[in-house]
Amino acid sequence: MKIVSKIAGLEHPTGVSTGLVPTMGGFHEGHLQLMRTARSESDRVVVSLFVNPTQFAAGEDFERYPRDFERDRALAEQVGVDVLFAPETSEVYPRVATTVHVPVVTKLWEGAVRPHHFEGVATVVCKLFNMVQPSVAYFGWKDLQQCLVIRRMTEDLNLPVQLSFEPTVRETDGLAMSSRNVYLTQEERRLAPLIFEQLSASKRAIGVGANTTEAIDEVLRRASDALDAAGFRVDYFDLIDLENAHPTRKASIPSAIIVAARLGKTRLIDNVLM
Amino acid sequence: MKIVSKIAGLEHPTGVSTGLVPTMGGFHEGHLQLMRTARSESDRVVVSLFVNPTQFAAGEDFERYPRDFERDRALAEQVGVDVLFAPETSEVYPRVATTVHVPVVTKLWEGAVRPHHFEGVATVVCKLFNMVQPSVAYFGWKDLQQCLVIRRMTEDLNLPVQLSFEPTVRETDGLAMSSRNVYLTQEERRLAPLIFEQLSASKRAIGVGANTTEAIDEVLRRASDALDAAGFRVDYFDLIDLENAHPTRKASIPSAIIVAARLGKTRLIDNVLM
Repeated sequence: MKIVSKIAGLEHPTGVSTGLVPTMGGFHEGHLQLMRTARSESDRVVVSLFVNPTQFAAGEDFERYPRDFERDRALAEQVGVDVLFAPETSEVYPRVATTVHVPVVTKLWEGAVRPHHFEGVATVVCKLFNMVQPSVAYFGWKDLQQCLVIRRMTEDLNLPVQLSFEPTVRETDGLAMSSRNVYLTQEERRLAPLIFEQLSASKRAIGVGANTTEAIDEVLRRASDALDAAGFRVDYFDLIDLENAHPTRKASIPSAIIVAARLGKTRLIDNVLM
Repeated sequence: MKIVSKIAGLEHPTGVSTGLVPTMGGFHEGHLQLMRTARSESDRVVVSLFVNPTQFAAGEDFERYPRDFERDRALAEQVGVDVLFAPETSEVYPRVATTVHVPVVTKLWEGAVRPHHFEGVATVVCKLFNMVQPSVAYFGWKDLQQCLVIRRMTEDLNLPVQLSFEPTVRETDGLAMSSRNVYLTQEERRLAPLIFEQLSASKRAIGVGANTTEAIDEVLRRASDALDAAGFRVDYFDLIDLENAHPTRKASIPSAIIVAARLGKTRLIDNVLM
């Protein structure tokens, strides 16, 4: 595996397909699954590892975000990654720079709770696409709204990259894998699977007939209340369409139930596709 | 010459270099010169012809902008263009879409007089680069601030395109060629060369020694006053650096004198590089 830290060090071999897995490190099974999929589908696999400062607001967890380069390097190597691209911040952002603004899908949820978060995400992903020039880029559905933002940006800007969104990888008790799970105390870790339980129960309830506006409202409210009662502070628990990321009460269109909830100092997000 | 109107109809042959000349049509010798340069430097020349609505504000000349597809088509054919890409607006902008914001170089001059103009320019050029995937893209220095915006966007977003900025092509009396020159009345057309005369005189004066802050201020003020006295309404006449497009009084760094002036209903811009 080649480790590249300079943008100029990236190669663009012609006649081979390149799969890109953009990451912020802190690798878990979800990342490794993306890398394995890329490995099985592309001639060449590039993993970028860059904790992007512009998608964190002041007071968020940029400083304490898990960083263990040697561990991540070893894991990427094991999975058969060809290039680990880990640039310095000064390489990626040498100055006040151009930004990419994605409308509509950024308005609510993470976009409302974390202003400028998706501007940071869209800009860095646009840059990474241009730096690496992959045929396909892989993202996990765990960050569902992020997937919708990247999909919309890619379509709107006509970026010549195919997108592949892969299923969320979960712990055996259902907790969605996330680099941020390491922040959880033992007690919080014990509670955390309730998020996926409530998502699954809500999906089931809507699936078996609670599909009027009123019934869906009731299902979502009960799930949210159950999390609050267990000690979470729920930011949102809603059914959204996958086109605009706006609330919907039609579970028959492409949609998902999404949730963000705080547990102590940690903010967890998860979703289930309908 | 192949005429392509659908984005999906664009080909991306590998192993050949593609030169792109983005235009809004209304071809004059300046455009043809860009096409000839592209022809001499690239295996394949693509000219895009798209009057981009998002770079015009309400009340500007979007509706009356010169459109003569048959004339433009014939001229491009004569110069040996391979592909004339003329998409419909609904192809380029099927919905409310992602935008590209370029800081610093957009703040003053055209960016101040025409809010959102450069957002429209940066976004459409980013899209065209991604659609056509050229090796090199050609622009005329006549639209100097536009060149600086595109250069900065290309660097900031790591777009894999080389930029080539070509000298302004002028009429024999010095008037910079522009699609908008057709708006001029006979009387205005007679006055118009005064813009380049004042630019040239200012460059000469600064070059032969008027290079203190005070002397440059005086040179610029006199030139601006001369245009106003002749019947122009000057928006700006200034010396700027080519890095940030901010005013400078150092003619020794990469810089240019830029001017925008209205003559009747027509707004003309021009510049000379120092």
